[in-house]
Amino acid sequence: MDTRDRLIESARELLWERGYVGTSPKAIQAHSGVGQGSMYHHFTGKPDLALAAINRSAEELRERAEVAFATPGTPFERITAYFRREREVLKGCPIGRLTQDPDVMADPELRKPVQETFTWLTGRLADLLAEALEDTVDAHATAPALVAVLQGGYVLARAAGSADVHTRAVDGALGLLAGYVAKEGN
Amino acid sequence: MDTRDRLIESARELLWERGYVGTSPKAIQAHSGVGQGSMYHHFTGKPDLALAAINRSAEELRERAEVAFATPGTPFERITAYFRREREVLKGCPIGRLTQDPDVMADPELRKPVQETFTWLTGRLADLLAEALEDTVDAHATAPALVAVLQGGYVLARAAGSADVHTRAVDGALGLLAGYVAKEGN
Repeated sequence: MDTRDRLIESARELLWERGYVGTSPKAIQAHSGVGQGSMYHHFTGKPDLALAAINRSAEELRERAEVAFATPGTPFERITAYFRREREVLKGCPIGRLTQDPDVMADPELRKPVQETFTWLTGRLADLLAEALEDTVDAHATAPALVAVLQGGYVLARAAGSADVHTRAVDGALGLLAGYVAKEGN
Repeated sequence: MDTRDRLIESARELLWERGYVGTSPKAIQAHSGVGQGSMYHHFTGKPDLALAAINRSAEELRERAEVAFATPGTPFERITAYFRREREVLKGCPIGRLTQDPDVMADPELRKPVQETFTWLTGRLADLLAEALEDTVDAHATAPALVAVLQGGYVLARAAGSADVHTRAVDGALGLLAGYVAKEGN
């Protein structure tokens, strides 16, 4: 990894774990082993580096989601593959957790990739749901409910100190959904 | 309000808005107008005051939930009343947001009221769901899914900068649920 990459990866890790307000330039330097001068050579400051880190996390989230959505099978099976894919549940979602950072939410540039990621994911799920459920239920409302289950599942898992409740919430959501998957092949 | 109460209310407000790591004793003193000496007369330090603030927020969450659950009507109507009750969506959940605070999660005393609140809420919903849905679907998995919709709905709303997506997620969850409410009177 080159210096720029090391800075971005350290910033991602620290933002995920400690949030924006809890991540100082000094901590990023210590974590990456990159000096202050070199850091400011590559990035104008913490917001600039954080933006690169958030963009990379957002890109990774999309790529991983696309892998699951491309699972062979019916639309419902592809949705299920996405919901059941391996996750670092107790660490939470590197994108979702940023919504609790008032400084990220207050900065339109930093908030943009967070907003766009959820808009993309919700739209992608709405398309699959429309295929899976046909007209049995409103895909436009079901899609954000499902994305919320994943995000809220992290909240419950972290509160409980155990990933089990995230699994249970996903089971519950897929269980509700299953009754609407009317025809074989959906 | 007496001095102790003013400190607790300021701590609640700042924890809700800025999180634990973003809330300094100095900020609490400035917000409450209470001096340092007086603060340390009432509380041993930030963790002690934060615990009092978290306990009060947890108590309030339970009281508000109980009001909604006590709405006259069928179990499904009572669940619906809880989900549709007025919320400060863009501020998020004062309890749920604490799960993103690594210092709160790492301190068993501070995490305890967060964990207990979600365990209580999930159990309360599971009982109502068991009545509403009878054996059409697993209440034990559906309850955490529903709590997750509320918590994840805040994440989506904050990302979007609009409460609409929270409403849509709740619509989606209640829409899925409605198909399982088999008999009139449930």
